[in-house]
Amino acid sequence: MAKELRIIGLSGSLREGSYNTATLAALQELASPSTRLEIRRLHKIPLFNEDVEALGWPAPVAALREDVAASDGVIFASPEYNYSMTGVLKNAIDWLSRPAGAGALRGKPAAIVGATPGRFGTTRSQTHLREVIYYNDMPLLPTGEVLIAHAGDRFSDGVLIDGDTRDFLARMIGDFENWVARHRA
Amino acid sequence: MAKELRIIGLSGSLREGSYNTATLAALQELASPSTRLEIRRLHKIPLFNEDVEALGWPAPVAALREDVAASDGVIFASPEYNYSMTGVLKNAIDWLSRPAGAGALRGKPAAIVGATPGRFGTTRSQTHLREVIYYNDMPLLPTGEVLIAHAGDRFSDGVLIDGDTRDFLARMIGDFENWVARHRA
Repeated sequence: MAKELRIIGLSGSLREGSYNTATLAALQELASPSTRLEIRRLHKIPLFNEDVEALGWPAPVAALREDVAASDGVIFASPEYNYSMTGVLKNAIDWLSRPAGAGALRGKPAAIVGATPGRFGTTRSQTHLREVIYYNDMPLLPTGEVLIAHAGDRFSDGVLIDGDTRDFLARMIGDFENWVARHRA
Repeated sequence: MAKELRIIGLSGSLREGSYNTATLAALQELASPSTRLEIRRLHKIPLFNEDVEALGWPAPVAALREDVAASDGVIFASPEYNYSMTGVLKNAIDWLSRPAGAGALRGKPAAIVGATPGRFGTTRSQTHLREVIYYNDMPLLPTGEVLIAHAGDRFSDGVLIDGDTRDFLARMIGDFENWVARHRA
């Protein structure tokens, strides 16, 4: 029997009806029984401030750091705002990358997914996110960009209803489970 | 006599001793007497949330939007975190770009500066910031990247003491004043 994998899914959107959070929920459902995919939303993460860091991790940051540090891999889900990832996600990553060279994200296998009501599926956001992931020394799943365009047609009440997209995500989470297992010591 | 220009400088760092805020302070000092450069820090800007936006601008966001909308141009100053601009700055931009197509930043002449104790002067952060600025339809000052490396040697107690850097910034703010004046209706 496969060893349990623990994956953290970080949603870059705070919107209640977020398509990106819904994408993580679909992956949660499509993952193997031996995978525990936990979604973390970022409402309580304060703005990064090095002076605050010097006094100790704020409680919501400490909790998220522990979850990420204990995980086997991380999936980033972000809308595209202003041709980049959301400030909300970037701010959380700024905390999770600290202290420099020894952040919680360091070395964790990673994947990117993105959903948008628009046509281009968060391509530009993902381009920036890849740089951020590279900086954190995270092996990034190389197969198949997950670019969910026209999300309004594919989700209903927070549930992914589009069959092709479900099939695509089922393959992707399987690929990611293999990727995570391969990179685990 | 030159018409007064009002420029907003947004600092992407919340650190008290921020080199980026200090760079904006140096520009403030080096600007023409007819230019009013106001520095805005982002400590009070909440995380962007479309659900919150739907209820109305939070007070600190409303105040910043008004300042930016009333300005003739914007200077972005950001450290480089994780090969990109800070989440703090990106989050503020996410608010200032809303509503889509009619955000406070839209069409404002812009410039980028960056300072870092490191060697590369925030080059990668600025690359990402240029995309964000392009999205917001902002004419970006094309001359001379302001990449202040080894900032620890150039600033002392929040004051820019390096003569060459001061000369460079004096030319840059002059160029930007001309750029802003040219793009003002």
